[in-house]
Amino acid sequence: MAQFQSLPGFREFYPDAFARRNHVFRLWRQTAHTFGFQEYDAPVLEPLDLYKAKSGDEIETQLFSFTDKGGREVALRPEMTPTVCRLVGAKANALKRPIKWFSIAEFYRYERAQKGRERAFFQYNCDIFGEPGPEAEIELIALLVQSIRGFGLSAQDFYVRLSDRNLWFYYLEALGFDEAQTRSILGAIDKYEKVGEDAFKGYIEAHGALEPEKKDKIIAFLKVKSLAVLEETLASIAGEKIAARLADWRKLLGGLQSMGLAEFIEVDFGVVRGLAYYTGFVFEAFDRKGELRAIAGGGRYDDLVQKLGGPALPAVGFAIGDVTMALLLEQRGLMPTFANSTDIYAVIGGGEAERAAAFADIHALRANGFRVEYPLKDLAFGKQFKAATEAGAKLALIYGGDELAKGVVKVRDLGARTEMDVPCDQVAAMVRDFFSAGAE
Amino acid sequence: MAQFQSLPGFREFYPDAFARRNHVFRLWRQTAHTFGFQEYDAPVLEPLDLYKAKSGDEIETQLFSFTDKGGREVALRPEMTPTVCRLVGAKANALKRPIKWFSIAEFYRYERAQKGRERAFFQYNCDIFGEPGPEAEIELIALLVQSIRGFGLSAQDFYVRLSDRNLWFYYLEALGFDEAQTRSILGAIDKYEKVGEDAFKGYIEAHGALEPEKKDKIIAFLKVKSLAVLEETLASIAGEKIAARLADWRKLLGGLQSMGLAEFIEVDFGVVRGLAYYTGFVFEAFDRKGELRAIAGGGRYDDLVQKLGGPALPAVGFAIGDVTMALLLEQRGLMPTFANSTDIYAVIGGGEAERAAAFADIHALRANGFRVEYPLKDLAFGKQFKAATEAGAKLALIYGGDELAKGVVKVRDLGARTEMDVPCDQVAAMVRDFFSAGAE
Repeated sequence: MAQFQSLPGFREFYPDAFARRNHVFRLWRQTAHTFGFQEYDAPVLEPLDLYKAKSGDEIETQLFSFTDKGGREVALRPEMTPTVCRLVGAKANALKRPIKWFSIAEFYRYERAQKGRERAFFQYNCDIFGEPGPEAEIELIALLVQSIRGFGLSAQDFYVRLSDRNLWFYYLEALGFDEAQTRSILGAIDKYEKVGEDAFKGYIEAHGALEPEKKDKIIAFLKVKSLAVLEETLASIAGEKIAARLADWRKLLGGLQSMGLAEFIEVDFGVVRGLAYYTGFVFEAFDRKGELRAIAGGGRYDDLVQKLGGPALPAVGFAIGDVTMALLLEQRGLMPTFANSTDIYAVIGGGEAERAAAFADIHALRANGFRVEYPLKDLAFGKQFKAATEAGAKLALIYGGDELAKGVVKVRDLGARTEMDVPCDQVAAMVRDFFSAGAE
Repeated sequence: MAQFQSLPGFREFYPDAFARRNHVFRLWRQTAHTFGFQEYDAPVLEPLDLYKAKSGDEIETQLFSFTDKGGREVALRPEMTPTVCRLVGAKANALKRPIKWFSIAEFYRYERAQKGRERAFFQYNCDIFGEPGPEAEIELIALLVQSIRGFGLSAQDFYVRLSDRNLWFYYLEALGFDEAQTRSILGAIDKYEKVGEDAFKGYIEAHGALEPEKKDKIIAFLKVKSLAVLEETLASIAGEKIAARLADWRKLLGGLQSMGLAEFIEVDFGVVRGLAYYTGFVFEAFDRKGELRAIAGGGRYDDLVQKLGGPALPAVGFAIGDVTMALLLEQRGLMPTFANSTDIYAVIGGGEAERAAAFADIHALRANGFRVEYPLKDLAFGKQFKAATEAGAKLALIYGGDELAKGVVKVRDLGARTEMDVPCDQVAAMVRDFFSAGAE
């Protein structure tokens, strides 16, 4: 029979790969907990309409969508945002605010598999609901930075580019653009870094020529990289809206600075995020060398909970993908190698009585949280000691005929290469003492 | 816009439900680790043929199967066994034996949703590959028992019914049945407990009348509930095969007894497991009151790795479902309630300087692993202390104008209701000492 294979773009995690994945997930979980975020999870399959409602009908081409046996149009989830909006929206009144939630889940899209973009990938999603002000962004961006920095990465390794769709809207409004034109220009800004001037082609096709003077102003604005330059650029079109927004900016940057995170944050109006549902601050995390795709992306989306059937509820969130995160850790030598080592190896003599005595201790020790290995089948003592060393055991418990006759177990400290006889009824206490003393 | 809902039978895990799920998964993970099992994970979507190859074409009616956009026949995984066989089979020569693996993953089936049987459910799958003898069953069944007992359930709460398809085959062969008849009779045994005599209808339709004498012998055999009765029943048809198999039984039961698990194990030939691919010992775990579906099921399947394209590799495994497991814990009052409590609450005065000082400490404490909450917006002191208590904080750190002027933070022990001023640069050390002393 032919060898079966997994579907293209889907991922298998053998134990060594799983250990690396788990290293990443564990740090994310711990970090989210220290920030008071609560973990949730949600269905892997959702009604297709949920994604169309958020992103428009054209999203279907990118989705793993199908018709189920009950005739429902469904899709494997491509992202968590619409789902978490539905969950929070459905119980918005019962949930204590601010609602700080996170999840780690797998997502799916139907596209050509390529390096760093599989058809299946994990994301760590963190969101705050119920807080409209930049205080939520401070909390969330601090969590984002700590969720990357916690692996041992510094401000020399990554940074967060911070921008603002509101100020873009105000600025383009002041330049005389209407909303449709503004959205088209934001689409161009999103592409400008990659394709340069060509980014404006779409605008010109839809709305006619772009006056050179206005284009220069747009390009000047997308090159804004500090609060000082931002204030200077906006000085000529000052007004209440802009003054209030600049106060938000000062609060956000001040808060992040107070948290000691200034070196991780770069003002950068070249970032606008492609997704139309963002309504305020937007941000992306990148490696400093610029070799990888974005590590994370996020922003404020104050309208989406309501759009998806819930109450009006302000929201801000980010997602980190596991693939780019792991690539960066590998590149910087920060992905540990995981030894699959045991605490204890039970070396068992050839008789039934030896095995019975060993089994009693093995099970009791495991029930007390120690990891214990033993040879399933009878094996010469020499081979068992070799297996104990290969398994990385700190202690060997030796159940031989001689020991049994004396009512003891021989305990060998495999690190110190010392051994002693321990009465059978004191083995558990001896093991506890050994490991609580730090297993020297 | 209409309220969106999740698809029927799919499960949402709000934070309180997630915490209960996590309680179950965490104990499973810890227990598997103490037994030296390694965690893996695998695709949620697989080629439909993988399941057809294992279970026959008719399985498709129960699966969440569909044709993907590339024209592939695929299915959301209904179980882990074929996938883990493929993974292990593909690297069988590189993996150290015995291969002891586990996973916790979600599975899907297309059937009417009912209590305890959603369309989506989690299973904890544990398997040992590479060991043909009952030594593997000892290790695996000990893990099964500990993975249920670890929650605080005793032998008064659950037990494992242990049976053997080999002895059923030998016994029916001795009664003169051919292989097709034997498989039909095993199908009847599987249903006998539920439907009684009607279980044999299928056999009679396919193979003609069942002699009363033979039927009596079959029913007598399915009522075998001890090793002594088993040996007695088989005495008349003794032979080498049966003698060897009874030796396996003695080894298995002896090993489990040595591990202190005898009270959890019941010999019970009424169990045969419906699945045709099992090739030896089979077992199911049930609540003692018999109120719930099986908690777990498993057995030996020595032919499946090869059938799915790998090398010949003996295997034995079990799965525990999360739904019945959680129901049993709830019924026995063993599901904890999870307080979502913080370690520290930062109470912050109304000024910018107070907030800046607080932020520096908050971020540093979180980076050191403490869970810290604070009010995102300015709030009266009284309300902040109320919030601190509601959040379950052990310590409040108070950043007021007076404290700031004195260069201190007021630290309040919310349990002992004591407070003291701590110099700003000693807050981190003070917090560490407080929590390492056990937060009295």
